[in-house]
Amino acid sequence: MEKIENSIEGKGGSPLLDESGSALNNSHVRRDGKAVGFVLVHAGAGYHSESKAKEYKHVCKRACLRAVDKLKAGAKAVEAVTAALIELEDSPFTNAGTGSNLNLSGEIECDASIMDGKSLHYGAVGALSGIKNPVLVARRLLSEAQKGKLSAGRIPPCFLVGRGAQQWAENHGIPPCPSEKMATKFSLSAYKRNKRKMELAEKVETEQIQAKKRRQLNEHVNNDSACLDTVGAIVVDQEGNVAAAVSSGGLAMKHPGRVGQAAHYGCGCWAQNACNISPYSTAVSTSGCGEHLIRTMLARECSTAMQSENAHQALLEVMQSQFISSPFLASEDCVLGGVIVLRCCRCVDTQSSPNLQALLVEFLWSHTTESMCVGYMSAQDSKAKTHISRLPPGAVAGQSLAIEGGVCRLGSISD
Amino acid sequence: MEKIENSIEGKGGSPLLDESGSALNNSHVRRDGKAVGFVLVHAGAGYHSESKAKEYKHVCKRACLRAVDKLKAGAKAVEAVTAALIELEDSPFTNAGTGSNLNLSGEIECDASIMDGKSLHYGAVGALSGIKNPVLVARRLLSEAQKGKLSAGRIPPCFLVGRGAQQWAENHGIPPCPSEKMATKFSLSAYKRNKRKMELAEKVETEQIQAKKRRQLNEHVNNDSACLDTVGAIVVDQEGNVAAAVSSGGLAMKHPGRVGQAAHYGCGCWAQNACNISPYSTAVSTSGCGEHLIRTMLARECSTAMQSENAHQALLEVMQSQFISSPFLASEDCVLGGVIVLRCCRCVDTQSSPNLQALLVEFLWSHTTESMCVGYMSAQDSKAKTHISRLPPGAVAGQSLAIEGGVCRLGSISD
Repeated sequence: MEKIENSIEGKGGSPLLDESGSALNNSHVRRDGKAVGFVLVHAGAGYHSESKAKEYKHVCKRACLRAVDKLKAGAKAVEAVTAALIELEDSPFTNAGTGSNLNLSGEIECDASIMDGKSLHYGAVGALSGIKNPVLVARRLLSEAQKGKLSAGRIPPCFLVGRGAQQWAENHGIPPCPSEKMATKFSLSAYKRNKRKMELAEKVETEQIQAKKRRQLNEHVNNDSACLDTVGAIVVDQEGNVAAAVSSGGLAMKHPGRVGQAAHYGCGCWAQNACNISPYSTAVSTSGCGEHLIRTMLARECSTAMQSENAHQALLEVMQSQFISSPFLASEDCVLGGVIVLRCCRCVDTQSSPNLQALLVEFLWSHTTESMCVGYMSAQDSKAKTHISRLPPGAVAGQSLAIEGGVCRLGSISD
Repeated sequence: MEKIENSIEGKGGSPLLDESGSALNNSHVRRDGKAVGFVLVHAGAGYHSESKAKEYKHVCKRACLRAVDKLKAGAKAVEAVTAALIELEDSPFTNAGTGSNLNLSGEIECDASIMDGKSLHYGAVGALSGIKNPVLVARRLLSEAQKGKLSAGRIPPCFLVGRGAQQWAENHGIPPCPSEKMATKFSLSAYKRNKRKMELAEKVETEQIQAKKRRQLNEHVNNDSACLDTVGAIVVDQEGNVAAAVSSGGLAMKHPGRVGQAAHYGCGCWAQNACNISPYSTAVSTSGCGEHLIRTMLARECSTAMQSENAHQALLEVMQSQFISSPFLASEDCVLGGVIVLRCCRCVDTQSSPNLQALLVEFLWSHTTESMCVGYMSAQDSKAKTHISRLPPGAVAGQSLAIEGGVCRLGSISD
């Protein structure tokens, strides 16, 4: 198994990389006490063709801007991460919300979840049809659960699926959206193409049944640009709260009712503020093959690892030993996924008053897919940086990994 | 917070308890090489009235027998655990399969999952209607996933929900069952009673809205015997493989589409064979308030803890620090749940040939609910033992816990 460390080490062992691949130091220290914060988004781990790179980068840029706008207005992390997700879902180029992959029946069924690192509350929807922004339903489930019990002492749900989820959304003022408005020219033509491929494959496989090779065919449905482009975002706000979210249309040609990692607790996203036993606040959002990300509980594993001293080394180890070489995926020869992670801690702002604290944010992305598109921005930046991270030439997707990231110093926060 | 250790310590610090509360030693050593194995089942953590104790014990007994019959016939752990679950689901007294709680719309929607400790494969269904034995669909998802990829390289699903799950089941030869056949006199009358309570509560709450007390009412819908009776089982087979399963009709009056812990990876059940870094094979099945069990990922946490030296102490600590006092449930004043766990390891059978090994099985149950009904049996027993574990008088449900268990030595297995 090949191991690729595609990162550039910065001072003090922290990996630093900007869009052009050169080392940078995003250190921003504000002394005026204005809102600060940071957002990192992804438009999926999969394969991003050069021809569409511009579109993917563009939507990441816009998503970062939406989150930063919220942060600047004083919004909490959960609100900012939701704003980023809405932008990512609304893009016809991503496999989430509008433009989602169609399932075997030609329908759109979306998964999404969100987690608030402060309250540790969580909301998720699975196999949801007819709602333009699934993340809004997950967000609303989270906030309704935070209000406490329902009438007659009933416990509010944190996870709703299918028609029931759609009804709940409509009852809570989230308007329905006709499925045909969420399908795009691209998703419809991909569906037709995939359907033909499947029919052809099944014909070939039927002929091969006698040789007991029914399921060994290597021609994949999911080999185009749209295959795994789950989207997600992670945010730290001015108070140091973290939040994470993820949204996906799921695998192309999935069975109706199939729920992927984007709606699975611990698998699609994770956010946990620092506490007495965990010095770092952490946030994670994943992308890739849902079943692989579910069975390895990758989001939560990455969050736990982020409490280690060296974030870069810890993520590398998780991706190698608990994803590519996970005992849970022992029968898989191709393990596909990607993560964005951040961790932050307060540090004394020596450049200004000793009473003021800064937030040190370390952020990373890693993937075993051909490529992963990310964008990031702090509230002090005038524009977002975007990057399509790729495995080096010759590296085998599903068996190798890329890892990159940076650090960002946000200040100043009153103690 | 009160801590209750309701266990009786056996020789060597292992807690041992039989139905009558007296210490026992289930040591069985077979030298004829015939099938051995062990099963532990639960008919839910909740409140089991004395009047229904007999029924609950009876179904646990039958479920144990079904599993042991399979084990004796040489079946693997997954097959035996499925057989136990079918019996538990078919009982009109449990909140799973037939007799499940009705949701807000008066419909039955079931959750179930199963995990194979050997392959670490997993299958789950959520919000599934119209199938008599939801565990059979979870089991089939698991076995289909074990076969490898679908046509055209598609990855098989591990989690299906709603109508799509029902379709998939029917396509795989699992016959539909009209919902009216799954409802019982008891579940229908509980629904009508709960509905009246809810309407009354909402009327009272509407009057209280001006005082901003809308959600503070203490009269609960879920206060009868049927409230939390999720069922589950854990098994170790003659080869030392473990498996776990869980099935639930969910909370009474839940919102349609609500999915509870029984369909959540890491939350409803967990099974993991021993490997080079984990000396014990472990299996866990949970019961109780789904949202509490999801947010604490209780099944997986218990499994991890079972690698500690002292199983009883480790489970006690998990139940206290990661359930009752979990930071994930900081806003909850009443944390309701229960678990059954087992761990096993091979040991040299000194009573026979040094070439033969025995399996040492330690099994425990713990709950914060008023009571929990369990049954257990080894393949050498002529009948199952059953027990309704209760919090001691005066202990507060949701804030206190009970913990009990036993050990069982199974032999002999060729190395």
